[in-house]
Amino acid sequence: MFSLLPELNGKKVLDLGCGAGGHLLHYMAMGAKQVVGLDLSQSMLEQAEKDFAKNGVDPTAYRFYCLPMEVLSTIAESDFDLVTSSFAFHYIKDLSALLTQISAKLKPQGQLIFSQEHPIVTCFKEGERWEKINKQQVAYRLNYYRDEGERDRNWFQQSFKTYHRTTATILNTLIQSNFTIEQVEEPMLADQVEWHNEFKDLQHRPSLLFIKSVKK
Amino acid sequence: MFSLLPELNGKKVLDLGCGAGGHLLHYMAMGAKQVVGLDLSQSMLEQAEKDFAKNGVDPTAYRFYCLPMEVLSTIAESDFDLVTSSFAFHYIKDLSALLTQISAKLKPQGQLIFSQEHPIVTCFKEGERWEKINKQQVAYRLNYYRDEGERDRNWFQQSFKTYHRTTATILNTLIQSNFTIEQVEEPMLADQVEWHNEFKDLQHRPSLLFIKSVKK
Repeated sequence: MFSLLPELNGKKVLDLGCGAGGHLLHYMAMGAKQVVGLDLSQSMLEQAEKDFAKNGVDPTAYRFYCLPMEVLSTIAESDFDLVTSSFAFHYIKDLSALLTQISAKLKPQGQLIFSQEHPIVTCFKEGERWEKINKQQVAYRLNYYRDEGERDRNWFQQSFKTYHRTTATILNTLIQSNFTIEQVEEPMLADQVEWHNEFKDLQHRPSLLFIKSVKK
Repeated sequence: MFSLLPELNGKKVLDLGCGAGGHLLHYMAMGAKQVVGLDLSQSMLEQAEKDFAKNGVDPTAYRFYCLPMEVLSTIAESDFDLVTSSFAFHYIKDLSALLTQISAKLKPQGQLIFSQEHPIVTCFKEGERWEKINKQQVAYRLNYYRDEGERDRNWFQQSFKTYHRTTATILNTLIQSNFTIEQVEEPMLADQVEWHNEFKDLQHRPSLLFIKSVKK
């Protein structure tokens, strides 16, 4: 996602779902003047505070909030040049409401850059994800793409919900929320040519969707 | 695609791959002042001329060209309010070059609306398209999505070439060609609710991609 970033010198940046603040620390290193992070995990944010202090970042230059991004409008800071979010928007039930809040926190011409699981992945409901021959993934089993809405998921016995929206819906929701689409990417997890033989099956399906947009 | 059309009263419209001119006749009925069609098929265009004459359309209000759309720049007409194209762009090898010619033929703020086979479909190389159980299509076998370029196709023994581009590439090519994305749709072939039981398998995969864009 870093390849989509604009010049950050002197900029004010908000990261939604910032985790332990790794991205925000990187933005500071790129010259950002002020950064704000939101995350649901208190322990991640404590780690972020430690890392920022350890790196000697001016304490007035950053702030972390333990909040769901759905209540973004309640934080004091505004007039951001850039809002970023990695791999989080597919957990959001009402994308339109979130985009309205993000837009309100952005300066005019401010940018929103986010990644999420690709709709080809978020549509998954049940069964095998791949058709395999001799353990080689030969085709991704795409179904229920057009059936938008809640999905029940599991990760090591832990259940959670994600929300499937088609690519068209994501783009149109952005446009209707007064954003202009600047760039769309459907990257491989491993886009380096030297990895292609090892991850050959990834050529069959994009697993991530990156979108760069600008507030009108 | 008609649902994406703007108000056409008094407008000048170009249809690329116009066939027998059905869409252009519809645009005239919607109030378009002048229409131009390009198609590779002489017999289709003869049919179009007949239909326009039969419908009593003013002969100075339309013009048909038997030309590949790749040489669009050679026609005399320009300053179009709208360019449309149905189900043709996946036959075009160099989309960027075509978009440059379309842009040159459009007025500022002129619109481009097109449909094409969805990238989920154009990526197809070989083998079965669907995994079936008891003749019911249960999963679309998606592969080679990220492998862009030429595809050899067949339709009743007739071979032809199409060109696969990812959704990201199509959108970015438009943006780089100075178009702003206004709307993206991934419609079902049968979007009417009453058809859903009959065409239930179509929920698994979008077969068409519609894009509405505007020249900056």
